[in-house]
Amino acid sequence: MTSIDLNADLGEGFGRWRLTDDERLLSVVTSANVACGFHAGDAATMRRVCELAAERGVRIGAQVSYRDLAGFGRRAMDVPPAELAAEVAYQIGALEVFARAAGARVAYVKPHGALYNRVVRDEEQARAVVDGVVLADAALPVLGLPGSRLLELAGKAGLPVVTEAFADRAYTDEGTLVPRREEGAVVTGPESVVARSVDLARHGEVDALSGRRIGMRARSLCLHGDTPGAVDLARRVRAALEASGVRVEAFA
Amino acid sequence: MTSIDLNADLGEGFGRWRLTDDERLLSVVTSANVACGFHAGDAATMRRVCELAAERGVRIGAQVSYRDLAGFGRRAMDVPPAELAAEVAYQIGALEVFARAAGARVAYVKPHGALYNRVVRDEEQARAVVDGVVLADAALPVLGLPGSRLLELAGKAGLPVVTEAFADRAYTDEGTLVPRREEGAVVTGPESVVARSVDLARHGEVDALSGRRIGMRARSLCLHGDTPGAVDLARRVRAALEASGVRVEAFA
Amino acid sequence: MTSIDLNADLGEGFGRWRLTDDERLLSVVTSANVACGFHAGDAATMRRVCELAAERGVRIGAQVSYRDLAGFGRRAMDVPPAELAAEVAYQIGALEVFARAAGARVAYVKPHGALYNRVVRDEEQARAVVDGVVLADAALPVLGLPGSRLLELAGKAGLPVVTEAFADRAYTDEGTLVPRREEGAVVTGPESVVARSVDLARHGEVDALSGRRIGMRARSLCLHGDTPGAVDLARRVRAALEASGVRVEAFA
Amino acid sequence: MTSIDLNADLGEGFGRWRLTDDERLLSVVTSANVACGFHAGDAATMRRVCELAAERGVRIGAQVSYRDLAGFGRRAMDVPPAELAAEVAYQIGALEVFARAAGARVAYVKPHGALYNRVVRDEEQARAVVDGVVLADAALPVLGLPGSRLLELAGKAGLPVVTEAFADRAYTDEGTLVPRREEGAVVTGPESVVARSVDLARHGEVDALSGRRIGMRARSLCLHGDTPGAVDLARRVRAALEASGVRVEAFA
Repeated sequence: MTSIDLNADLGEGFGRWRLTDDERLLSVVTSANVACGFHAGDAATMRRVCELAAERGVRIGAQVSYRDLAGFGRRAMDVPPAELAAEVAYQIGALEVFARAAGARVAYVKPHGALYNRVVRDEEQARAVVDGVVLADAALPVLGLPGSRLLELAGKAGLPVVTEAFADRAYTDEGTLVPRREEGAVVTGPESVVARSVDLARHGEVDALSGRRIGMRARSLCLHGDTPGAVDLARRVRAALEASGVRVEAFA
Repeated sequence: MTSIDLNADLGEGFGRWRLTDDERLLSVVTSANVACGFHAGDAATMRRVCELAAERGVRIGAQVSYRDLAGFGRRAMDVPPAELAAEVAYQIGALEVFARAAGARVAYVKPHGALYNRVVRDEEQARAVVDGVVLADAALPVLGLPGSRLLELAGKAGLPVVTEAFADRAYTDEGTLVPRREEGAVVTGPESVVARSVDLARHGEVDALSGRRIGMRARSLCLHGDTPGAVDLARRVRAALEASGVRVEAFA
Repeated sequence: MTSIDLNADLGEGFGRWRLTDDERLLSVVTSANVACGFHAGDAATMRRVCELAAERGVRIGAQVSYRDLAGFGRRAMDVPPAELAAEVAYQIGALEVFARAAGARVAYVKPHGALYNRVVRDEEQARAVVDGVVLADAALPVLGLPGSRLLELAGKAGLPVVTEAFADRAYTDEGTLVPRREEGAVVTGPESVVARSVDLARHGEVDALSGRRIGMRARSLCLHGDTPGAVDLARRVRAALEASGVRVEAFA
Repeated sequence: MTSIDLNADLGEGFGRWRLTDDERLLSVVTSANVACGFHAGDAATMRRVCELAAERGVRIGAQVSYRDLAGFGRRAMDVPPAELAAEVAYQIGALEVFARAAGARVAYVKPHGALYNRVVRDEEQARAVVDGVVLADAALPVLGLPGSRLLELAGKAGLPVVTEAFADRAYTDEGTLVPRREEGAVVTGPESVVARSVDLARHGEVDALSGRRIGMRARSLCLHGDTPGAVDLARRVRAALEASGVRVEAFA
């Protein structure tokens, strides 16, 4: 039987500000990418999200970012590798306290925002992220884009790698994401997102922007939780997956 | 044979800025209070200080603080207890990554600056600090002032407590520190500081500001490293202690 | 004819996060307390709010705060007076750029959150805020609580003072605000808030928590904009004031 | 008679941390690039530096930066243009308060660190900086590298432009700075720095790294103040310029 992991960003508020509906998202996903304080995520929120995730049996991942609250981690930064590696490890360690206190562990690492995009191709920063993960825990899985420098270097360093796909993002014929600034980059129709989720999970295939069917094998699907209706869509995706015979469960 | 621990604040720079001469201090002290990023201490510095401390066999402690880079953690803040507890745990966790990577562990917690002063009497914040430590590790020693609310509540919570004294600060007849704003609060003569260190370590006594001799039993002496000549004075203190037959070693 | 000013906090988002519905609030109030970056308010938001306020003829005020993004300026801080005065001036200056670029000026200053509460009684911090305002502009009005240290010292320093009242907060018989932690501190019924607004504006009176009618002369009413339904309530208050013959306009 | 301006970065501490010897530097330079809080420079320091500069008749400039305390503004960031423009204006406005309070004005703008380097060629960010300056004051001079995008676009926008050269940096035959990572990029001998300063000021020429003499007309020389001996070297440069008949004065 085919199985798929569902991951989403959680705990992306800061102090007075909230962004994601953490409680409801945790009833849908199997892996929670928890913000660790650098782009979002104050300590009290991190604690609460870890407690909720542990209660529901949702896996906890460290969503590591550039240090950039003002830009929500969406502005690429030329951080020297030694600093970046240390900052990645710092964030993992901070989250680990709350995961352990809730009876769980940090189970994987996923870069956020501009860092996520940068380590698709930037060898220096990808290596720094891997160094940071190894510093924290040399057996910690890394979640990222298939074919990315990050996963390549993580694999070489002996870290387990987990691939993910996006049902609400358009792909080129080569299997890379269509940049957000291009037309059609985001798939907005809920029916399409649901159908593409099932295609990805069941067949390891998706329709590229050109209309051509391409292979896209991923162990996890990334759902978004920061827009109105996002949680409802996530629920529909999960229901459709289960109805089509896919088992929704965290990656091993 | 009498023994004493020597602790000092380290890694109190941030990014481009440096404050303490970490390398030289680490050749004198037995316990390093490492800044964890809230009042000072960027991730790369935390990593480096942990590596140096581990190499020299110096114990690593988490110097936790209010979130206040602009005020260096010296401005008292009314942080709600749940937030404060989570922030304390966050800092300990972040440091633990670098301690472990260096082959060591975070061996104790010491509050910094305004938080240190506040938890001498403020029950709510003292309890929050204890909660934060327990969240991170229910067996982690807490370093603080004898008679403080912090040590009292830490002890009740089952945490090991470690008392400290200051050879360069004046004491009242009741054994409390003379507030810094009062005259004579700081002992400036190097000879006096050295002599008082030996008194404290060997006899568990010190001359109060009034001239009266009082008992002051402490397991650790706090040395300062952020003023010109501070490291030299620290060396002299250590040499005098050893010459007087005191063993300088980390607390058990 | 009686007239009253309506003020509300605006621009209290930061980067990715939003809090207040600035566009709609600006169609109701006559004075906008704009966050200046210390508790909320990134530069792009400050610019946008100033442009919108200037278009609608709404007066722009600097809502100055402790430097505390994580606590949204709601945690009292012992900031040394010279630092606090400089931080107040800094915030006013930063906002002035956007007010001028929009063809307006910063027309008043109002402290935010914990600073607002602190300067009701704390002479040292009240004086520091006044010093900061004078540093920026020795003719800038200060908005605050009647009977507060802040307004007393501002008046002595030659600054115009503007009193404000809260229709949704309970008062003691002495005319001070009932602390939020006490029962009945917040008036929640919309009808009550509307009726109290009219009482305050027309008669300079309000029912204290005890039921006794007390005098409460204020030149401005503070409306809240950060809760669901807040803007609708603000509209109703304004409509009721106008229907009762009160002219809603910015203070002179 | 030839004249030259001498500029240096000042006020580059933050809270507890100090970097530059502001008092002594202010006795040498004619233009002070004052940090505005984004890469360094707390409000109290900004105030003090403005007061000292005004007393000594040194011109005050806004040294604007990316928002990056942890990286001291030395990490390039992909800040969207609208945000960057607003952040530049914010910093200028904040400094203007302290300049005015000291009886002076912000007399020019100079980008710092990674932003300085980026706007040499990056059209989008250069335009954003110019937009930010215009937002603050449409007649404010911009200080930068000859041939940079920044000065080109500033000139087109009607802002006065001021060119600067570096006596302690190597130049290519084309008159661009040799990147710091390349060998010979920094001129370390004090005699050479002094001689090159005189060459630049008197003849508008300098020896490129290749040994070839090239033209380099600049209205200002940038001196560094953050290394040991820097202030003494700055003094020697100034003395040598005056001895060679160059008038050291702020640009008109």
